[in-house]
Amino acid sequence: MLYAVNPEWRTHSSQDVNSQNDGKEVLIGGWIQQIRDKGRLMFLTIRDPSGICQVTLHQKNVSEVVWETCKKLTLESVVSIHGKVKADSRSKLGAELTPDSVIIHVVAEPKVPIDLTKMKTKMEIDTVFAYRELSIRDPDVAAVMNLKSIVAQATRKFFKQNGFTEIFTPFILTASTEGGAEQFSLDYFGKPAVLAQSCQFYKQAALSCHEKVFGLLPSWRAEKSHTTKHMTEFWQIENEIAFATDKEIMQVQEDLIAFIFTTVARDGEDQLAQLDRTISIPKTPFKKIPFKGAKQMILDLGVEEAQEEDFGATGESALSKSFKEPFFITEFPVHLRGMYYASNPTNPEVTRSLDLMAPEGFGELSSGGQRVADYKVLEERIINQGFEVSNFEWYLRMFRFGMPPHAGFGLGFERLVRWIANLSHIREASMFPRTPDIYSP
Amino acid sequence: MLYAVNPEWRTHSSQDVNSQNDGKEVLIGGWIQQIRDKGRLMFLTIRDPSGICQVTLHQKNVSEVVWETCKKLTLESVVSIHGKVKADSRSKLGAELTPDSVIIHVVAEPKVPIDLTKMKTKMEIDTVFAYRELSIRDPDVAAVMNLKSIVAQATRKFFKQNGFTEIFTPFILTASTEGGAEQFSLDYFGKPAVLAQSCQFYKQAALSCHEKVFGLLPSWRAEKSHTTKHMTEFWQIENEIAFATDKEIMQVQEDLIAFIFTTVARDGEDQLAQLDRTISIPKTPFKKIPFKGAKQMILDLGVEEAQEEDFGATGESALSKSFKEPFFITEFPVHLRGMYYASNPTNPEVTRSLDLMAPEGFGELSSGGQRVADYKVLEERIINQGFEVSNFEWYLRMFRFGMPPHAGFGLGFERLVRWIANLSHIREASMFPRTPDIYSP
Repeated sequence: MLYAVNPEWRTHSSQDVNSQNDGKEVLIGGWIQQIRDKGRLMFLTIRDPSGICQVTLHQKNVSEVVWETCKKLTLESVVSIHGKVKADSRSKLGAELTPDSVIIHVVAEPKVPIDLTKMKTKMEIDTVFAYRELSIRDPDVAAVMNLKSIVAQATRKFFKQNGFTEIFTPFILTASTEGGAEQFSLDYFGKPAVLAQSCQFYKQAALSCHEKVFGLLPSWRAEKSHTTKHMTEFWQIENEIAFATDKEIMQVQEDLIAFIFTTVARDGEDQLAQLDRTISIPKTPFKKIPFKGAKQMILDLGVEEAQEEDFGATGESALSKSFKEPFFITEFPVHLRGMYYASNPTNPEVTRSLDLMAPEGFGELSSGGQRVADYKVLEERIINQGFEVSNFEWYLRMFRFGMPPHAGFGLGFERLVRWIANLSHIREASMFPRTPDIYSP
Repeated sequence: MLYAVNPEWRTHSSQDVNSQNDGKEVLIGGWIQQIRDKGRLMFLTIRDPSGICQVTLHQKNVSEVVWETCKKLTLESVVSIHGKVKADSRSKLGAELTPDSVIIHVVAEPKVPIDLTKMKTKMEIDTVFAYRELSIRDPDVAAVMNLKSIVAQATRKFFKQNGFTEIFTPFILTASTEGGAEQFSLDYFGKPAVLAQSCQFYKQAALSCHEKVFGLLPSWRAEKSHTTKHMTEFWQIENEIAFATDKEIMQVQEDLIAFIFTTVARDGEDQLAQLDRTISIPKTPFKKIPFKGAKQMILDLGVEEAQEEDFGATGESALSKSFKEPFFITEFPVHLRGMYYASNPTNPEVTRSLDLMAPEGFGELSSGGQRVADYKVLEERIINQGFEVSNFEWYLRMFRFGMPPHAGFGLGFERLVRWIANLSHIREASMFPRTPDIYSP
């Protein structure tokens, strides 16, 4: 019995219509994926989230009511069909269902705006997202979303079994937290507010309550970037640890990535097969490449853009393509990083920060590092980066009255899913993505 | 060894300074909670998220460096202290630490704005939230936040083991989803948008990908309600099931609540003790009271407000106070519910919807029910409730091209935590709450 499903509408899944269940009575529920009408013989393909099955009706073998009911069906209509499983070695699926009763829940209107009968034929990308509430019926989309659910569960399991506490940070904020990337403005009962572009300050504050924290939390950036790795609304795997350094948070990321890949390889086998994706579990530890060295490697790859101060999107992508395993870029210069990154005591121009990079051209996954815990250094950094000290009142006050040294990172959840599922664009890792061009459905 | 913590700063927790560890060398890290300076004898209380421990310094027994270093300490300074655990039956904590080396990470400024030395003395509520980044150092707050983390994990475990898939829905939306409660407006690259007040439409859509879905997701309501059970930013335990009815989702809620309480009773014992809270596991099934009967019960309790059409906040609270176990209110009239609730085929004035109510006066926890799956009924409802059909384009299109019958509910996450932790106000269930008056820190 399916838990929490009405047994008068559905007791089994499409995938239960298989040769092992020969002779069994089942009640399946789902959408009409295909109708092949051959006069006195009719084949229906029923789709539910578990897969598809075939219902075969010979007019002479089914009741008149069942025959007439099925004659009314259109593509994407929703039905419950009761009948007996019949193993059939000639059928691709190994079995078919002979119906003895049919409930029509909805007769779908004809002319579905997108063709859901041949889903492996790639649709125009604009159509996919304009009719996203329909295009998510594609089993490839379901496979990606199932992988996403598996990655989320694995992430939390990893943190839980290593003694981390889950946190929930606020999203409506009064002022610019970090500056830099753009924020969405909103009206908070007549007062100006913004949507959080990260939970940075709040996850640091949470170390007053907990020793080690994590969260899977949404963020927003109002950037008009038309790239394959940016959305305006996205989730981050967030992490912060008291009394930790940049060294420990690299280890956490290595262990986390290995744990997630191991879990996905085990629990996501069907989804990976559906997507024709093969993954291998990354070998730890990952390579650590200082910023200067990374820049030289990019120049050696012939990307001229890397002569600029930062090495840019093209450089990052080229570098990522040249790797088969994830790697870290370390020792970013102070002026290229957020003001909350601690600098190296022996070389104050350089931060104790790092980015985790995916291989195969997928590029940056996470940013993190050791944080500044000294109030005076932090105040100086805020001034040097051109911000107003008065915008950081509570954040600075927290440090004036004692915060431990700490480190942490934020890892792009959809970026990770994109890499695992091998998606050409990050928006495919979201059921209802938000980009500068898409904000509906 | 603590996972992912720098062993030069911290190898043990305060709670490891106990009589079982007599003679053991430990390195603890934390805040100075108390200083008692008795001339040649000094007692320091060190607080970390695991609890407190006592460090005892006799001037004659410690090095001059250690003595002079500790003399510099102020309340809330952050230190790492290495030393030997000494069991001491006279001490309240059963043991103390004799230090042989001390690292000062931060000397806190004197005059901490709130008194963190006597945290059981309740502070003024305005002070608590004005200095929330400091008041969360109170172990009572940590206990609540730890319970919240346990409830989140239990929720996801329950859904996972019952075959549900986790979903992530969008938060920036184009138009009013349900109408009714107010929404926060924001500017989406020059176009008007709103923050999601629920994921209702999107969790319904997700049933195109998955059979049964859940999510722990934030929502926002721009209501200026000054009540003990409303925040403008809150999380909901969201759920939707294809081929289910109102009956099944009542069972899911009963099982979920029982599972969460069982988990909290086992994993949250220390936190419940810290809060002086005793919980008992609710007995299932819960009572089901039709709306009309609930109204009569409230009138019998002497709440005159219940003579109004809906029975209001006072009525709800009075009814909840009269119960010792959670219960459902069912059969709400169509005109008092969202337009997406299916009506009873035998009595079309009444919906197949329900609210889950907590006992002890905590009131409404969830709303849910059977949804309308028929396109024409839905369109009629939208018109009857005074909305513009054109605002529901993609939502209606989804039903035009076939959606299965389905049911679901949304359960207030902080409301549940408030009940479990016995908090007087819902904002105490949030580390950084958002109410009409609070939006910083």
